[in-house]
Amino acid sequence: MHFIEKLSKANIENSSLVCVGLDPDPALMPEKVGVLAFCREIIEATSSLVCAYKLNLAFFEALGDDGMSVLKKVVRFVPENVVAIGDGKRGDIGNTAKAYARSLFENLGFDAITVSPYMGADSLEPFIEYRERGVFVLCRTSNPGGADFQNVPCQADGQMQPLFQLVAKRVSGWNKYGNMGLVIGATYPEELKLVRDQHPDMPLLIPGVGAQGGELSAVVRYGTDRNGRNAIINSSRQIIYASRGPDFAEAAGRAALKLRDEINDCLAGRV
Amino acid sequence: MHFIEKLSKANIENSSLVCVGLDPDPALMPEKVGVLAFCREIIEATSSLVCAYKLNLAFFEALGDDGMSVLKKVVRFVPENVVAIGDGKRGDIGNTAKAYARSLFENLGFDAITVSPYMGADSLEPFIEYRERGVFVLCRTSNPGGADFQNVPCQADGQMQPLFQLVAKRVSGWNKYGNMGLVIGATYPEELKLVRDQHPDMPLLIPGVGAQGGELSAVVRYGTDRNGRNAIINSSRQIIYASRGPDFAEAAGRAALKLRDEINDCLAGRV
Repeated sequence: MHFIEKLSKANIENSSLVCVGLDPDPALMPEKVGVLAFCREIIEATSSLVCAYKLNLAFFEALGDDGMSVLKKVVRFVPENVVAIGDGKRGDIGNTAKAYARSLFENLGFDAITVSPYMGADSLEPFIEYRERGVFVLCRTSNPGGADFQNVPCQADGQMQPLFQLVAKRVSGWNKYGNMGLVIGATYPEELKLVRDQHPDMPLLIPGVGAQGGELSAVVRYGTDRNGRNAIINSSRQIIYASRGPDFAEAAGRAALKLRDEINDCLAGRV
Repeated sequence: MHFIEKLSKANIENSSLVCVGLDPDPALMPEKVGVLAFCREIIEATSSLVCAYKLNLAFFEALGDDGMSVLKKVVRFVPENVVAIGDGKRGDIGNTAKAYARSLFENLGFDAITVSPYMGADSLEPFIEYRERGVFVLCRTSNPGGADFQNVPCQADGQMQPLFQLVAKRVSGWNKYGNMGLVIGATYPEELKLVRDQHPDMPLLIPGVGAQGGELSAVVRYGTDRNGRNAIINSSRQIIYASRGPDFAEAAGRAALKLRDEINDCLAGRV
């Protein structure tokens, strides 16, 4: 199934635009709970409330030798009807990008991944060629340093525009199979609005609500498409570290439900 | 030891600016030779002829569950007096970048790594804070698609310049511990010259000689500093796949020797 179709089904079945970010950091996790059990319990407690999980590859790599096998098992825990996103922000020349794509899509089995645009079209091509899988390209990231290059005015196609807008435009032009999207931080609602206005149908992966401070009503208003969809709103720490006690999974479930309902209230115009 | 000191010692001891790129692809490797044995034999046959090895993380990840443990073992094969570079082109927000840095520098033990600049200064900071390790930032990459964004004219500091030059300038400004460098493809000698002219002391990691077609004499002339150093000239496929027969390691040794001597001839003005 094309990831866009899967995403849309998950949005409807679970009435949810919420994506839970799985960034398992043993220093923040409940004591005496392993990464595998932690992720499994979080997924079990939240999977009826979300449209996607975003697995942050750095935190699995940081586990050492077992990192990849733990990661693979966690991807398997994600139910078939929910989208699994591999957040690695990869980007490299052709033959290397092919190796990354094979690893992420075939070995690990992600429905979608994140990539960096810096190396251009031919570095994205090997990912895009997996036509049913999603490829989310970094556009305006949620960190303050994102502005260092992403907001610099660039001259292209006879006009000046910030780099992140040029990236959005190019990605839109390269999107021949309809499987590309953009990553835009919830922390920059004005930039989110600019991109959504120019790309009304593009799926947007929006990290940074919650711990990073993105304002939810603006994110929902600006991030969703005309049908109130195609926005994957990610929260990581606020959900998975809602409690450090033995009730961590239950607390994660409550936090995911709260975020889902707040988003739906925004969509319904009640906020 | 600071990686710059280690690099400089290796340059002198082995009279070499050569870096061998370890991109182990089972489809191109000799039959019936495992990745671990392949890399070990290549390293043994070339380690007296090079200043560095660049291990391409994609090809290890593509091995599946064992990828990380194989990668770690290969890093251990690199002799103490030669620089081990982890080529992963990572880049992410602060707490995630910290996890990547811990994995690459502490668990895997690389002397230096590559990162993408797209997310800005705060995404590089956690790497830079390992003050004795090298951080090579993508500047002008060796692939044609690199031009898509890297060569776009950008307005900053009251002037227009291609994005790759702005990246070089910013990295130079952020280089408070002297452990940063730039990645510039051998395939774009004009861009290499521009960056070297403006940053005479910056270490440059230069991939793309050999299989990718970068012209060697221009690379050596433009890439090295005034002492004929601080250029790490990488060749991957031309060396490690010099033969697919049982003599693959010997052939790799011959190819590395040939490249070393050609570079040294360029440096001596004999070409």
